[in-house]
Amino acid sequence: MSDEFALIQQYFAPFSSQIGDDCAELIIPESMRLLTSVDTLVENTHFYSDAPPNQVGYRAVATAMSDLAAMGAQPVAATLALTMPEANDTWVHQFAQGLGEALAVQKVELIGGDTTQGPLTVTVQVFGVVPQNKVLKRDGAQVGDAIFVSGPLGDAAAALTVMNGDWPGGLEHREYLLTRFYRPSPRIDLGLQLLDIASSCIDISDGLQADAAHIGRASGVKLAIDHRRLPLSPALQSVPVIARAKQWAMTGGDDYELLFTVPASAIAKVPKGCVQVGKVVEGQPQEEGGWKHFAD
Amino acid sequence: MSDEFALIQQYFAPFSSQIGDDCAELIIPESMRLLTSVDTLVENTHFYSDAPPNQVGYRAVATAMSDLAAMGAQPVAATLALTMPEANDTWVHQFAQGLGEALAVQKVELIGGDTTQGPLTVTVQVFGVVPQNKVLKRDGAQVGDAIFVSGPLGDAAAALTVMNGDWPGGLEHREYLLTRFYRPSPRIDLGLQLLDIASSCIDISDGLQADAAHIGRASGVKLAIDHRRLPLSPALQSVPVIARAKQWAMTGGDDYELLFTVPASAIAKVPKGCVQVGKVVEGQPQEEGGWKHFAD
Repeated sequence: MSDEFALIQQYFAPFSSQIGDDCAELIIPESMRLLTSVDTLVENTHFYSDAPPNQVGYRAVATAMSDLAAMGAQPVAATLALTMPEANDTWVHQFAQGLGEALAVQKVELIGGDTTQGPLTVTVQVFGVVPQNKVLKRDGAQVGDAIFVSGPLGDAAAALTVMNGDWPGGLEHREYLLTRFYRPSPRIDLGLQLLDIASSCIDISDGLQADAAHIGRASGVKLAIDHRRLPLSPALQSVPVIARAKQWAMTGGDDYELLFTVPASAIAKVPKGCVQVGKVVEGQPQEEGGWKHFAD
Repeated sequence: MSDEFALIQQYFAPFSSQIGDDCAELIIPESMRLLTSVDTLVENTHFYSDAPPNQVGYRAVATAMSDLAAMGAQPVAATLALTMPEANDTWVHQFAQGLGEALAVQKVELIGGDTTQGPLTVTVQVFGVVPQNKVLKRDGAQVGDAIFVSGPLGDAAAALTVMNGDWPGGLEHREYLLTRFYRPSPRIDLGLQLLDIASSCIDISDGLQADAAHIGRASGVKLAIDHRRLPLSPALQSVPVIARAKQWAMTGGDDYELLFTVPASAIAKVPKGCVQVGKVVEGQPQEEGGWKHFAD
């Protein structure tokens, strides 16, 4: 690594520990299981070149943390592999601020990383712990379970139209939508609460339809979603053709809300703010794209 | 992720477990500490575009594992974040074979990953365990300790001249040098043996001179290397101007041998094949480039 690439690591020091050895160390409490997830964001694939660096940093951590939320884990650490064309101090400084802000929300430190020269690529790996035998999985949904989502859907997909200048809804909602895209809130607290309630869980990163199919396939059931129950933010409710908003809610990814199933006996324990959107039934999971006929 | 990018993950299935949930799980034995390290290889920065894909896969795992060796850890798992311009089945198939081969050497599985579209970038994160309080670090070198390396140095730097058509040594050594570059052998077994012997340890990835300075800075001492003792392979001994070979051995990176210090009382226990190259003395670590005056 060139010296200048070694030097930019200084920007991560304020929220890093253990800099200086070949590996980072983690001590896992007894009786806990370690969970890990890795997510890569690539310039021009996952974010635009002119995206604010602090937002890219924030989002990289938040989206990775969302995978921990989906399994009911408590975050304990993160690592960063950052590849960039040149050691751009200004960019890294802002990127590091956003990254550090998202880490601080979860009270975790960056325990290691690698900085290399090449096309702009951000790979964040997160670590969490969950009590043994309590982890939330995709394969536990049972026929008769209720299907819930943790909040409004489709906002991140709508945010892309704001960036492109195509947003058809009320102009006053643009800031809200961009915030939902760049600063997703991983539902860590909800995931912890769901450990004793949900029969299956996933975070909605590929879109409700695709992620419902993931649970369906893993559990050998079908998740029947009632499109009339999809929670829409005031922003999406302002879209003139509501079918378009519902399409975003059904197929748009990157919202990072949780989708989970709950046995009838536990419905009363589901935390406030979650919305029932359907029921687990017998049958094959919907094919990708199979929800289109639900559109108004 | 597009379907075709999801599909290429099938090539990693033969040596993967746990595919299907948002996170991978790791169970860490009681009384063990978890170590992790992440390394990114970027096309045209760390390997040439025409590099054989299986060699890139092998090397990505082996170089990451070398960080575990440097701390005396036993590898237990790995994850992969692969970014590539298009879902090139042939490339991925060959890449996966090399990756799987390197994983099999260490008897570990790929427990998770992410596959994204963008410029070719390979990020491997490895996990290892080490008994509590036994980890090898950089900061334990003491004045009077002997300095050892685990094998011949400079081969990987010489391999670059083979690739460029500039190799000045015997033509019969080309294959050996390319193998040393593409298929480094992380010194896992040696690292485990050194847990009770070495006072400090690092893997030689930046070059002997730079990595000796890393130990020196962390330990507050100076590592005095005797350039006459540098172990050179028969390939490097065939170079007409031997000073050039010694320069590679002193400054060339990517050999992934171990550099470690040993108290006088433990020298007899150092495994065979390791070579003493100097002694820890009082003083400031050499500056980068400071070894130049040793060249013949």
